[in-house]
Amino acid sequence: MRRFNKITIIGVGLMGGSIGLAVKRRKLAGEVIGVFRHASTLKRAMRHKAVDRGVMDIKEGVKDAGLIIVASPVRSIPRLVKEAARWARQGAIITDVGSTKAWIVSDAEKNLKRFRNIYFVGSHPMAGSDHTGVEFARPDLLENAPCIVTKTKGVNKRALGIIAAFWRALGSKVSLMSPAEHDRHIAFISHLPHLVAYSIAGAVPEKDLAYAAEGFADTTRVASSDPGLWADIFVTNKRGVTESIRAFERYYKRIMRHIAKNDYRGIVKALADAKRRRDKLFYGK
Amino acid sequence: MRRFNKITIIGVGLMGGSIGLAVKRRKLAGEVIGVFRHASTLKRAMRHKAVDRGVMDIKEGVKDAGLIIVASPVRSIPRLVKEAARWARQGAIITDVGSTKAWIVSDAEKNLKRFRNIYFVGSHPMAGSDHTGVEFARPDLLENAPCIVTKTKGVNKRALGIIAAFWRALGSKVSLMSPAEHDRHIAFISHLPHLVAYSIAGAVPEKDLAYAAEGFADTTRVASSDPGLWADIFVTNKRGVTESIRAFERYYKRIMRHIAKNDYRGIVKALADAKRRRDKLFYGK
Repeated sequence: MRRFNKITIIGVGLMGGSIGLAVKRRKLAGEVIGVFRHASTLKRAMRHKAVDRGVMDIKEGVKDAGLIIVASPVRSIPRLVKEAARWARQGAIITDVGSTKAWIVSDAEKNLKRFRNIYFVGSHPMAGSDHTGVEFARPDLLENAPCIVTKTKGVNKRALGIIAAFWRALGSKVSLMSPAEHDRHIAFISHLPHLVAYSIAGAVPEKDLAYAAEGFADTTRVASSDPGLWADIFVTNKRGVTESIRAFERYYKRIMRHIAKNDYRGIVKALADAKRRRDKLFYGK
Repeated sequence: MRRFNKITIIGVGLMGGSIGLAVKRRKLAGEVIGVFRHASTLKRAMRHKAVDRGVMDIKEGVKDAGLIIVASPVRSIPRLVKEAARWARQGAIITDVGSTKAWIVSDAEKNLKRFRNIYFVGSHPMAGSDHTGVEFARPDLLENAPCIVTKTKGVNKRALGIIAAFWRALGSKVSLMSPAEHDRHIAFISHLPHLVAYSIAGAVPEKDLAYAAEGFADTTRVASSDPGLWADIFVTNKRGVTESIRAFERYYKRIMRHIAKNDYRGIVKALADAKRRRDKLFYGK
């Protein structure tokens, strides 16, 4: 893995901070710079030693960086990629960590056309759950985590290889796919579970929470995630979310039909098929 | 708490075994007997020291017991309550641990009418998650767990008090309510999350599992639960399950409408309401 003179992380929360800690631990950069919007977050990130140095000015932050990682909320990514490109040095590579990709990548590629020798490659490292904030950042957050790097027609092959190698160097398991494929896969595996968890938590009568046990706690855990962040994700992956909720709907309606008819074997079959799939998951307790 | 001469547990799996271990640790009975259907389970329970003695014959098992606990799968409970009552001594109290109550309690009360001085009180200790089997039994499983004890018009008040005190002695937090109320509450807090978790796991394309991270693992964890056991629960609490899935459906459809209209504030409001409820949960990591 090549070593960067300077890596700049724009937005240093759970993900940005964990990347900073991992880059430092693995000595993948001469210097790790954080770009902040609020002085208070800068202070917290420095206390947590997530970056070597923090600045509030994006121009100053990205100057001379070989790699720029935009790790801010989804909605702000296209604007910050553009802003970073404006001040980046020739040959710099910009990536992001946003949870939806088609919306971000198409915008970034369009906007970066006018900056020659500045390259964008979309990324989605999949780690973290309901916690947000640099206090929860950990140098091992990305170890063994899946990470999707987007491959498009217009992508610069060298930049793509460098970004894939970068995530691998942090311990992630990298897959390459198109932004649209990413959005479809991730809708099922991440956006749908979040939408559903929020909807269970929202639908349950408040007094019933007193009887909640571990199963309820597990199933709704991600409903503690940041609403603004998830509103962005849902809006920017409308198609994937809609497709996955339709498939989910068909599944539970099938079970409900069996329940209505007291079709015990039909229910068992549907539940057993689901269980078989869940039991294949390497992840989780 | 009164001490029983003999407590008999019919069906010694995760729950029955944990009750056995807890009763022994807290010395609430002179002897704890397990009633088994299979010799192999009997052997495993004895190895785990979940009961003092195991028998395969229900008549022999319940003889002279002051308290009989039916901890078998939901579907078999009414039959085993009736069978236990047939051989129980005068004054014996029978309870169960089934996850649905109206179906079980109405059947038990009807069937026990002809046995004078044998009392039934329905219980639902809420603990355990996706694991089954006596190997996972733990003496502290019921500590701090919610436990609902059903109060009906026909219930014997003294028996009700003894059963409530018994669960409290094991460390559970007891609530009294009617079987119908139980089924409504628990549909939201337990049956709905299970149905939904199974439906996510069932709907996700198998190849997408490779990208699953912690959020997916949490949300679908209970989809690893026993299909037969849950088919029974769904069928015997049809009304509660239907009611809760309707409320859940309204919630996600509201979010989907906001997504379709790019109504960012509408989505944030719905997610934030859900999050507020989830964050109230005392339980969980």
